[in-house]
Amino acid sequence: MIKITFPDKSVKEYQKGVTGMEIAENISNSLAREICSVSVNNEIWDITRPIQSDASIKLHKFDDPEGKHAFWHSSAHLMAEAIETLYPGTKFGIGPAIENGFYYDIDPGDGITISDSDLPKIENKMKELSQQKNNYIREEISKKEVEDLFRKKGDEYKLELINELEDGTISVYRHGNFTDLCRGPHLPNTSYIKAIKLLSVAGAYWRGDEKRKQLTRIYGITFPKQKMLDDYLELLEESKARDHRKIGKELELFTFSQTVGLGLPLWLPKGTALRERLQEFLKKVQRKYGYEQVMTPHIGQKELYTTSGHYEKYGKNSFQPIHTPQKGEEYLLKPMNCPHHCEIYKSKPHSYRDLPVRMAEFGTVYRYEQSGELHGLTRVRGFTQDDAHIFCRPDQLKDEFKKVIDIILYIFRVLDFADFTTQISLRDKKDKEKYIGTDENWEKAEKAILEASKEKGLKTIIEYGEAAFYGPKLDFMVKDALGRNWQLGTIQVDYNLPDRFELEYIGSDDKKHRPVMIHRAPFGSMERFVAVLIEHTAGKFPLWLTPDQAIVLPISEKFHDYAEKVLNFLNNSDIRTLIDTRNEKIGKKIRESELKRIPYLLIIGEKEASEGTVAVRKQGEGDQGAMKLDKFADFIKKEVKKQTAEI
Amino acid sequence: MIKITFPDKSVKEYQKGVTGMEIAENISNSLAREICSVSVNNEIWDITRPIQSDASIKLHKFDDPEGKHAFWHSSAHLMAEAIETLYPGTKFGIGPAIENGFYYDIDPGDGITISDSDLPKIENKMKELSQQKNNYIREEISKKEVEDLFRKKGDEYKLELINELEDGTISVYRHGNFTDLCRGPHLPNTSYIKAIKLLSVAGAYWRGDEKRKQLTRIYGITFPKQKMLDDYLELLEESKARDHRKIGKELELFTFSQTVGLGLPLWLPKGTALRERLQEFLKKVQRKYGYEQVMTPHIGQKELYTTSGHYEKYGKNSFQPIHTPQKGEEYLLKPMNCPHHCEIYKSKPHSYRDLPVRMAEFGTVYRYEQSGELHGLTRVRGFTQDDAHIFCRPDQLKDEFKKVIDIILYIFRVLDFADFTTQISLRDKKDKEKYIGTDENWEKAEKAILEASKEKGLKTIIEYGEAAFYGPKLDFMVKDALGRNWQLGTIQVDYNLPDRFELEYIGSDDKKHRPVMIHRAPFGSMERFVAVLIEHTAGKFPLWLTPDQAIVLPISEKFHDYAEKVLNFLNNSDIRTLIDTRNEKIGKKIRESELKRIPYLLIIGEKEASEGTVAVRKQGEGDQGAMKLDKFADFIKKEVKKQTAEI
Repeated sequence: MIKITFPDKSVKEYQKGVTGMEIAENISNSLAREICSVSVNNEIWDITRPIQSDASIKLHKFDDPEGKHAFWHSSAHLMAEAIETLYPGTKFGIGPAIENGFYYDIDPGDGITISDSDLPKIENKMKELSQQKNNYIREEISKKEVEDLFRKKGDEYKLELINELEDGTISVYRHGNFTDLCRGPHLPNTSYIKAIKLLSVAGAYWRGDEKRKQLTRIYGITFPKQKMLDDYLELLEESKARDHRKIGKELELFTFSQTVGLGLPLWLPKGTALRERLQEFLKKVQRKYGYEQVMTPHIGQKELYTTSGHYEKYGKNSFQPIHTPQKGEEYLLKPMNCPHHCEIYKSKPHSYRDLPVRMAEFGTVYRYEQSGELHGLTRVRGFTQDDAHIFCRPDQLKDEFKKVIDIILYIFRVLDFADFTTQISLRDKKDKEKYIGTDENWEKAEKAILEASKEKGLKTIIEYGEAAFYGPKLDFMVKDALGRNWQLGTIQVDYNLPDRFELEYIGSDDKKHRPVMIHRAPFGSMERFVAVLIEHTAGKFPLWLTPDQAIVLPISEKFHDYAEKVLNFLNNSDIRTLIDTRNEKIGKKIRESELKRIPYLLIIGEKEASEGTVAVRKQGEGDQGAMKLDKFADFIKKEVKKQTAEI
Repeated sequence: MIKITFPDKSVKEYQKGVTGMEIAENISNSLAREICSVSVNNEIWDITRPIQSDASIKLHKFDDPEGKHAFWHSSAHLMAEAIETLYPGTKFGIGPAIENGFYYDIDPGDGITISDSDLPKIENKMKELSQQKNNYIREEISKKEVEDLFRKKGDEYKLELINELEDGTISVYRHGNFTDLCRGPHLPNTSYIKAIKLLSVAGAYWRGDEKRKQLTRIYGITFPKQKMLDDYLELLEESKARDHRKIGKELELFTFSQTVGLGLPLWLPKGTALRERLQEFLKKVQRKYGYEQVMTPHIGQKELYTTSGHYEKYGKNSFQPIHTPQKGEEYLLKPMNCPHHCEIYKSKPHSYRDLPVRMAEFGTVYRYEQSGELHGLTRVRGFTQDDAHIFCRPDQLKDEFKKVIDIILYIFRVLDFADFTTQISLRDKKDKEKYIGTDENWEKAEKAILEASKEKGLKTIIEYGEAAFYGPKLDFMVKDALGRNWQLGTIQVDYNLPDRFELEYIGSDDKKHRPVMIHRAPFGSMERFVAVLIEHTAGKFPLWLTPDQAIVLPISEKFHDYAEKVLNFLNNSDIRTLIDTRNEKIGKKIRESELKRIPYLLIIGEKEASEGTVAVRKQGEGDQGAMKLDKFADFIKKEVKKQTAEI
């Protein structure tokens, strides 16, 4: 008998050689049907693999990342089998599970092309093979045997991979007529894979090396139930429709230029206005909380970043130093604003009475990302942080933390991110050498974060060992309208920079003390936040924020005079209003204005002109009836006020 | 006889060998007493030097730069004579006239130090020598003779200079007991130099090379009349008191850090608020005139600047290209915003109906200046332009020009720069090859500028041949409160960039046309403008702009509650108000608040607290009597409204 320990620390005895599947069956048959993999002493195994000695285990359903991984990895093998059946002689590169689904890089042989139109055929073959309920069988054989196997198949890609493995036994998985070099784990058999969709075909260089052969990469996704696949495909469609790059183009918010450079957004007038409105909103909140705005240059001498340690972190893989006609002089594009703010702090002496100093800046920073990693506004090479640094005494940490939490919660409320989670990252007490700062300061800082979060009613996940080496932190993750998670706000305690920059204040004891720094950014980056906001709202921004709040649509030229009057009245009332005086049918004007996501369409005809009203049509909600002009203006102002009301 | 042509093209005959002085005497004795040098065929000569053949001449009084140059150069020689008398054996480096006065670099010999306290002694000796009315005598002798002369004196510095001259005759000037290697020109004699002030002593490396000997540099200034010297010294004092670097520090507007880098200002909270207020003010005016704000990155690929031609212009002597981990990739810090704006223009097609497009950005640009040329905020390495580019049809140029003039005049009025001049720079029609663009476009553009300026009632100076190669321009020079001139606003037509970037619009003829660009910046640079504004106002900014508009000063702790109420009331009324609750005498609080240039001091005592009033004290004008709190708030708001009223 062996002892099996469960995640709740309970222990049960089983026959030696028991499998994860059998343990699950022992609990309930319905559970057994759902599990996809099992962690055995923190290694993920097939649920059919015998356990030979005492172990801690955890069973993984499809909902767990470990479950999905086995499911999608098995799906990749299933797809490979289907392809081998349909395209005999195909050679195989690698075929991993990814964040959403799986892919396989294949070489169907010279002259054979697989394109999107071939995917249904492969998909059908996969379904057919899945119904055969073929078991995935793990075998451990010698390197030599594996080599023989793939040499016989003539698969040079697998041979190259095998060649790099150490000598000894190597695991392969077989199912049906297909065998693959693989660490596993896999599902018990192919019948688990009930809902299948192949998504796209792309080119991919073997081993990512553009000098080597371009293989065909086929992406797919699978689920245990058809309903799950349907939901996923719907989400995928909706995500595409909400893609911030698409909407950003439609609404003329931003653009990119090949000549200016990849990952360097150019903000168009409507996007600039939107961003400035967001910044003004944040500035106003921050002013209320005692922040002071500063402005600092976008470069600094290399020395600034060797002092801060950023050169060590970003130097090699980022934008390289800027030389000048003066020999030996070197500047860097700033990757962060904190060193500049430390220098401002140092520009005059501070007393304990002056603290906290709260220094805010919408600071544009530059970090080099690989071109393959760039994505719209979410991964760029230049972005503006809604940055601030709080320099405070250790005894002020908790209060300052609470105030930052207040700001972030206020912002989430105004911007309608109702669903969010928080994570507190603390140090690993068993490994204190990893962290800088005294034990006492760490205790104080961690206590401050924990208490502040509790007092503010946050439901937090606590992760030990996830703190940065220079201090603990609190992160906010929001769920968008599609249920996707985005990491936004972050609050971070820092003992390191005050040390490196030798920051000081004179305490009530007349002695020099070191302040603590808090880094915080509710949005993180203006670029990324605007992207998230676009995808969250599908471009239908809150009324107070949206570039254009209303558009006047006269039904014919006869009413242009009155329409212009309406336009001027509203713009003078600080309601951002457009007019469409083109000689087009009113139906077309309405459709195009709705595409532009303008919240209020004001139709002007005979009746409105004679009665001094506007016929109000609300985006997505249709006709709202006629309103006197000043009533409409009041209504909009009230709406805006309600949305931006202080807590 | 020879023919002498005067600046007004009139011609007179004189004896061969006539001097400038004699020509002046021929006109009037008072003129003859005033002239300091004479241009002979565009070469500047002594007024005692005989003219041997036909020539065009121009007589220079002290008021002319050419007159001042001779005056101050002669003064440098006079100082050298005084020093040689007082410190025999002194060796002399160079001693030029400069923008304001002159200096001489000297080596008084080992162990001898000349410091500020020695200046009056030298000054007195100069006065004594000046009264001797010694003539400055020009002699042309062979290089060999000059060498012998200075070898005998043992002056290694002069010998080094002589050594670098070409063989042939070399000019020297003698007066009294002093002889100097010199090209001239000089005054007739030392008695011209009536008012003398030596200003300071500094160290200066021989030939600016820090590996060579450090000489003693003595600065001085002289005038033909004592009154002129007195006025100058008063202006100098006042300029020092108004120095924006001094006031910027006192008011905590900005700072610099050696670690961040020279010429890279860090804007402190009060300076940031001031600058943002200026920017908001400009944005508001510009919005009214149909400008749209954009935001672009601070770098661009090198290709962007080879296309624009800026790389050729700034490349070698500026910040060098930024390399990345991607081989061959190069970025540049942007020296100008126009290339980015051209790329935005290109991001979508334009019709003649869409023009003009007016694109504005407070864009921070970086240009490398030699460290010796950096000066506070007026010469920096990173600065923010209040930039905009107007893309228009050629037929829209005049109207657009007029609108830009309107904006600039409005800004000058609000910011109290009543005294300004304008210059129109046109092309030199005799040298058309120097310019790009068609004749027709040049005619149109020059006509547009001339007419627009005339219709707007500007008194302009027209300078032919001063246009840039890519288009004509209009510049605004303001006189500050000390009468000093600053070049501020500029409006510039550009045919070049639209060509280089291949910008287009579809005309009413359905064909492609090239738009014209107007570059314009009313302030030029935010940094420089703030510096000028500080020196113009001595830090007493207009009420609407100043960082803090009022400060509440309770006379004792008893009135703190009421004082806090006043503070909150005013801040809630959007009046920027501070409070001083320190336990200090009211006199001290008033003095310190006035030093901070806060326009309104609100004294709170028994009477004010009981009556709900404030005792108002206006900066520089003293007691203004008591005012009800809401009355004071209204008063301030009205003042601000008046100052920022639209034309």
